[in-house]
Amino acid sequence: MNYQVAIIGGGPAGYSAAEAAGKAGLSTVLFERQNLGGVCLNEGCIPTKTLLYSAKVFDSARQASKYGVGVEKVSFDLPKIIARKQKVVRKLVLGIKAKLSAHGVTLVQGEATILSPTTVQCAGETYHCRHLIICTGSQTVIPSIEGIDSVNYWTHHQALECKEPPASLTVVGGGVIGMEFASFFNSLGTKVTVIEMMDEIVGGMDKELAAMLRADYTKRGIVFLLNTKVVSLSQNKQDVTIYYEHEAGTGSITTEKILMSVGRRPVTRGFGLETLSLVTEHGRITVDKQMRTSQPNVYVCGDLTGFSLLAHTAIREAEVAVNTIAGKEDAMNYRAIPAVVYTNPEIAGVGETEESLRQKGVRYHVSKLPMSFSGRFVAENEGVNGLCKILASEENILLGAHILGNPASEIIALAATAIEQQLTVDQWKRVIFPHPSVCEIFREVI
Amino acid sequence: MNYQVAIIGGGPAGYSAAEAAGKAGLSTVLFERQNLGGVCLNEGCIPTKTLLYSAKVFDSARQASKYGVGVEKVSFDLPKIIARKQKVVRKLVLGIKAKLSAHGVTLVQGEATILSPTTVQCAGETYHCRHLIICTGSQTVIPSIEGIDSVNYWTHHQALECKEPPASLTVVGGGVIGMEFASFFNSLGTKVTVIEMMDEIVGGMDKELAAMLRADYTKRGIVFLLNTKVVSLSQNKQDVTIYYEHEAGTGSITTEKILMSVGRRPVTRGFGLETLSLVTEHGRITVDKQMRTSQPNVYVCGDLTGFSLLAHTAIREAEVAVNTIAGKEDAMNYRAIPAVVYTNPEIAGVGETEESLRQKGVRYHVSKLPMSFSGRFVAENEGVNGLCKILASEENILLGAHILGNPASEIIALAATAIEQQLTVDQWKRVIFPHPSVCEIFREVI
Repeated sequence: MNYQVAIIGGGPAGYSAAEAAGKAGLSTVLFERQNLGGVCLNEGCIPTKTLLYSAKVFDSARQASKYGVGVEKVSFDLPKIIARKQKVVRKLVLGIKAKLSAHGVTLVQGEATILSPTTVQCAGETYHCRHLIICTGSQTVIPSIEGIDSVNYWTHHQALECKEPPASLTVVGGGVIGMEFASFFNSLGTKVTVIEMMDEIVGGMDKELAAMLRADYTKRGIVFLLNTKVVSLSQNKQDVTIYYEHEAGTGSITTEKILMSVGRRPVTRGFGLETLSLVTEHGRITVDKQMRTSQPNVYVCGDLTGFSLLAHTAIREAEVAVNTIAGKEDAMNYRAIPAVVYTNPEIAGVGETEESLRQKGVRYHVSKLPMSFSGRFVAENEGVNGLCKILASEENILLGAHILGNPASEIIALAATAIEQQLTVDQWKRVIFPHPSVCEIFREVI
Repeated sequence: MNYQVAIIGGGPAGYSAAEAAGKAGLSTVLFERQNLGGVCLNEGCIPTKTLLYSAKVFDSARQASKYGVGVEKVSFDLPKIIARKQKVVRKLVLGIKAKLSAHGVTLVQGEATILSPTTVQCAGETYHCRHLIICTGSQTVIPSIEGIDSVNYWTHHQALECKEPPASLTVVGGGVIGMEFASFFNSLGTKVTVIEMMDEIVGGMDKELAAMLRADYTKRGIVFLLNTKVVSLSQNKQDVTIYYEHEAGTGSITTEKILMSVGRRPVTRGFGLETLSLVTEHGRITVDKQMRTSQPNVYVCGDLTGFSLLAHTAIREAEVAVNTIAGKEDAMNYRAIPAVVYTNPEIAGVGETEESLRQKGVRYHVSKLPMSFSGRFVAENEGVNGLCKILASEENILLGAHILGNPASEIIALAATAIEQQLTVDQWKRVIFPHPSVCEIFREVI
């Protein structure tokens, strides 16, 4: 069978590429071996947000009296929360299917194997294509800790299917995934410990804000062990003992459950990638700004590029690849990619951090204000504060924006627009934001 | 006493002007006869949002089971809600006071009277200034309905101090203020009727979205009478009877309370404005793009201009006036002023509407999608939908954006930035929004 575009992998990169290619009138085939939507939709971004929203409703009900609302006996029904998550995922998967089918995309269920830059085999059939877009995504890294194979550890996969919150949970890796689950189980009453190798949680985010978030969760009972390395694990009857070391020496924790969330790595094997002999750099496939590899008709998008491991980066990369195929000028840039941790409060950032600017030796101005300078934030966040920080160049061009406080995940896109457009502080200040709104904090701070 | 800048009125226009002038190193005096913060902070935007957030917490608790959270006996404590509102207002007023004092602004409590373009009298003192900024704001319009003086009606003022929700409330005027109170009292169980003279509520917003909002509140028990004019009122012992007429004839309602929210008008009397003999047009003071009146050292900002009666417009106008005084080039434009109704769900819009474009005879493209095309919206809005609509010119330049669905009030600022920057659809599409987020709906729809 002949297609103009063949896409391997139906996660955010793959389904976005397929939709865009279909829209552009290109005959398109999409291969997916498991579930359309990929990790993001089936066991990542979307299911976690569904769970976290239930936790937020639970927290809000428990704290309702702060807002003059009386509530008795607040409880949660974890099986129901999990069931709703599945319903949400199903609905969204069907939505993607409907979009792909509306744009005439052929969806093939099965493991695809690349035979050549223009040939893919799947489920016994051979497909010829003019353009190949590879979007195989990433997988959970399981670190080679002594004893790892002998313990019943969770990855996000098991954590998302948990029907009864454990009495205690140790999260190994305090990045985005780790902190989101730490937050969820903390809300449900689980005693949570987070072990992080680096000197701060949610690496890559603004360090000052990350430390504030950590202080907040410390108050709520999460124990953080920073600069701490897990050295071995051993399974007991009902629980796991974790042995760790840090500057102060060694220690151990015994915990009912353990969640491994140290990171993710690109999926590069099992589908014939090696037959393409693509040029790589530092272990990553080399791509140009149009997402083209060293094989000019072969594109790589999403986590497989190893750049940012974020769904929204993948979606944009897919658009760039398809625009390029369709002859529409486009180019990827990584100047303004937002990063969000959906804790409660949320923390979000876009563009440069103070740390990244110092590392690059770029001089910058920093402006920051507590979130309570937003009237709406005060109206909706009794007894809670946060921080907004804006970084600008010496020429007053916006370089970075960072927020701790709800709804950081939504308003960070505003800063992304401004940074993407390389607005100066003065230009941004001329935009009129609604009053009252939390996002007004940006105008206040600059 | 001599000042470089004198400002009359301490609402959003006045306090923003004072803060900006102080920051710019100009000696500044601000006159306020009642409460710093004006109507917006003391009995408008902020207090209503505080109440509405309590209503949201109440609604969320009552619907918690949809998210797997069990809650028994949800109740509200209106006196506590009102008390919290007062606390929030006090805190924010103190915040403004602190900012003004940090920037060296002199705050004078009292009724100011303009004696000349450079002289103001207040509390027995005479103040000389080089620049005068008038920000006296607006006041509630009480329509001259037969019997109005014989009934105990509410304005927003009384509605905000209500300690016991009335059994029934009739809202005369289904604009922003009317709908926000209708929403609040509907949540608390009051039987609400909204009477609107026009053919749709929340005039000025996208009509399709407004109709959807109305349908939603109709389901929740609010009765809407559109194209309906109140002709007379009569006070009974405990309640008020409202006589109205519409196409189908006449009718009457008897209601415990009645809220008059037909509109607001600029405050032009009582402070010597007439001594300046400013040039006016259609009853409005003529100002140029720098907010200068026909007296070149006299500026008018905020509701007094009669343009948009929105706090955020006022804030921006104040900045423009002060930048002009400080010799910094700036100009006001009204291309991208967001409008929000903080109902639940919120409705928000910015830029042109289909109605305004048709009226101007401008050809446009419309793209729209249900909010359920955002995965996060689905995760956080069980059984609720909404709509996002984007309008673009034939050259694909963004002209307007409209949303029904939470958090419309926050994400509309994103569209405001794009419209203010006159981005094309393609340029906006290149901005990377976080996934999952509700604001991604903008990328989906375009």
